[in-house]
Amino acid sequence: MTLKTNATHDPALRSWVASANEPGCNFPIQNLPFGRYRRRGSNEGFRIGVAIGDRILDLEGTGLFAGDDMNALMARTPEEWSALRAELSRGLAEGSPRQREWSRLLLPQSGAELDVPCRIGDYTDFYTGIYHATAVGRLFRPDNPLMPNYKWVPIGYHGRSSSIRASGHVFPRPHGQTKAPDAATPSFGPCRRLDYELELGFFVGGGNRLGEPIPMAGAERHLFGVTLLNDWSARDIQAWEYQPLGPFLAKNFVTSVSPWLVTMEALAPFRRPFRRPEGDPAPLPYLDSPENREQGALDITLETLILTRRMAEAGMPPHRLTLGNAAEAAYWTPAQLVAHHTVNGCNLQPGDLLGSGTLSGPLPEQAGSLLELTEGGKKPIVLPNGETRTFLEDGDTVILRGWCERPGAVRIGLGEVRGTVAG
Amino acid sequence: MTLKTNATHDPALRSWVASANEPGCNFPIQNLPFGRYRRRGSNEGFRIGVAIGDRILDLEGTGLFAGDDMNALMARTPEEWSALRAELSRGLAEGSPRQREWSRLLLPQSGAELDVPCRIGDYTDFYTGIYHATAVGRLFRPDNPLMPNYKWVPIGYHGRSSSIRASGHVFPRPHGQTKAPDAATPSFGPCRRLDYELELGFFVGGGNRLGEPIPMAGAERHLFGVTLLNDWSARDIQAWEYQPLGPFLAKNFVTSVSPWLVTMEALAPFRRPFRRPEGDPAPLPYLDSPENREQGALDITLETLILTRRMAEAGMPPHRLTLGNAAEAAYWTPAQLVAHHTVNGCNLQPGDLLGSGTLSGPLPEQAGSLLELTEGGKKPIVLPNGETRTFLEDGDTVILRGWCERPGAVRIGLGEVRGTVAG
Repeated sequence: MTLKTNATHDPALRSWVASANEPGCNFPIQNLPFGRYRRRGSNEGFRIGVAIGDRILDLEGTGLFAGDDMNALMARTPEEWSALRAELSRGLAEGSPRQREWSRLLLPQSGAELDVPCRIGDYTDFYTGIYHATAVGRLFRPDNPLMPNYKWVPIGYHGRSSSIRASGHVFPRPHGQTKAPDAATPSFGPCRRLDYELELGFFVGGGNRLGEPIPMAGAERHLFGVTLLNDWSARDIQAWEYQPLGPFLAKNFVTSVSPWLVTMEALAPFRRPFRRPEGDPAPLPYLDSPENREQGALDITLETLILTRRMAEAGMPPHRLTLGNAAEAAYWTPAQLVAHHTVNGCNLQPGDLLGSGTLSGPLPEQAGSLLELTEGGKKPIVLPNGETRTFLEDGDTVILRGWCERPGAVRIGLGEVRGTVAG
Repeated sequence: MTLKTNATHDPALRSWVASANEPGCNFPIQNLPFGRYRRRGSNEGFRIGVAIGDRILDLEGTGLFAGDDMNALMARTPEEWSALRAELSRGLAEGSPRQREWSRLLLPQSGAELDVPCRIGDYTDFYTGIYHATAVGRLFRPDNPLMPNYKWVPIGYHGRSSSIRASGHVFPRPHGQTKAPDAATPSFGPCRRLDYELELGFFVGGGNRLGEPIPMAGAERHLFGVTLLNDWSARDIQAWEYQPLGPFLAKNFVTSVSPWLVTMEALAPFRRPFRRPEGDPAPLPYLDSPENREQGALDITLETLILTRRMAEAGMPPHRLTLGNAAEAAYWTPAQLVAHHTVNGCNLQPGDLLGSGTLSGPLPEQAGSLLELTEGGKKPIVLPNGETRTFLEDGDTVILRGWCERPGAVRIGLGEVRGTVAG
């Protein structure tokens, strides 16, 4: 397997930003993700920044890209992204003559407010987590958990763009219609089965024209970068509303994304072969390519944590709910999502977001939602302070984290996305 | 029932634009819809225009609204929209001192290119057509055609914004995965059950903040205007992909909207009481209001026509497939769609689009899709030249038209939306 790495991935590279060289840092010089930031408490417009160690480098200040429009950067070619990243890598490397000039462009991340990374036009949420699809299917259809189309069609549906928010968002518990199985009629009230979903978000770079599908070969050229995504879900609302057209109000009250677009290029050292289990059907030709089989999967470790209000008030750290890996959870690769989404001629545009769907691992304790972890609310989770949870309670904060590690490569991180149920 | 009409609705009003006074005109002075236009064949930016008779009045030229941003106009208050419309009505009325100045601002509609009427952020498609839901449900579930939630929940799902196109769009037949009921595995190829869907499009004016629902009282204050909408559908792709998360590639290859936003105010004389059939459950309180019962429904006549390539080549006129009425077809009103969409806190934004869903009438011959008209492809339609259709063939053009008529009021029209399958 040949990974498309270049000098920017060199494990020997160190930055003159000292914090970037610390072990376990999310943002070493081998990462260089892009985000939109401003000084905390200011009313300035958001600018494009590059995360390096515990700092943010102002991109426009470097003279390498003019303006503050992330979508304009995303609309460029992969060759231009790569050239920009190489310049950033050179300028931030130990011994760079730019150190003096660029050190004036740094802001501590702790002093910054980070927004969603771009203007998101359309948001599509897929369903690539086969263990999730099986576990959720089992709750509704014990005899036939996985739909017959699952191993053929990368199942997806359109989500809501307007309610996507950056990390740190606090939102009220949604209200809606629900109907208990034994009730004659539905009732209206606050959601009682509020949940999170652990996902990755793939952001589209260059789009395609309406009517012109993107083939598998080169499909990833249309992806700019990856974030973490929390697809907050109201399970009781979903159960009553979703037939026959899919989830709607159960999902669109808020969706949270992490602020840093980790580029596909930065992820190059962390690709894995993508092979289906023995006996599974081969993907149809429009969803298959040698490159996809060779290195279609993303080796990203994913962690979910919870911090209740009582835990926070007691000064306790967040409690880990799960630890898993995206490559083990996903039945479809990012390239397959792009090829499938456009095969009917549908057009993607710079800044569009593709959610992976819930990335539950093969083990029950790797489930990416409380619905699965608690078996539909039947088996409460016990937290370190003795609190229990079936679904989220007011004041709960959910934190998703992701990172990549591999022998011979420097660890890079996606950072985190957190969100809190108000109250 | 008190209809909220004002001087702009006066049936005695006539315009100095002579074509606006002709019987059967879509755009008399009592209508005054807004659209985005430019001279055909030019590369100018699109400007906001007002349809009057067979002309377009340039809005910025009147000095009543600065700039060419329809979304900015939509973001204003209903009082501001109403004041603008009153000024336009006065200026275009017979005897207006503005005739000389404004007559220089007119362009023939035949010389104009019309785009989608605004930047559409999020597009939601509802399912308010109860006869459609029943007929389609019957094809899939003969014993239980209407889902148990239908009379309680205004069923809706998110659609694709990027592929919404203006009237006149020609699109290639989509390709995708389909699976015949008796086939062991799916196959890939061109859609063989390509269909249209007759809908209305409701465009959001002022939005709401995330987390702050819009109550029924005043819900229509958040709607700016109405268009026709064709929700092109690939039935064979839909049947295979839609479980469990709803339609995706079957719908997002293109959606067509008519160019003129007919304002809610212009529609005021054409409201009808909205009453449910005897024995049906009352709407939950968050979906009910006296005003909605009194005049929630829209009395809009809807017509669907087809023009095949052979018919066009022979100089034949389009053939009417159906004639019906929105008020008879829809189980939920526009106000209920707004209230339901936001009851969980979901935020609407200026320019967002809410589709009504397919507006099939109570009679089989009033069905809003070929799927229904041909009973799933079993009963072909015979056209005047002897051609037959179960689903759309290459070269077919579908035309949707809508208008409002009522004793004591001047007829107003929505115009038309047409689209053509290439080939």
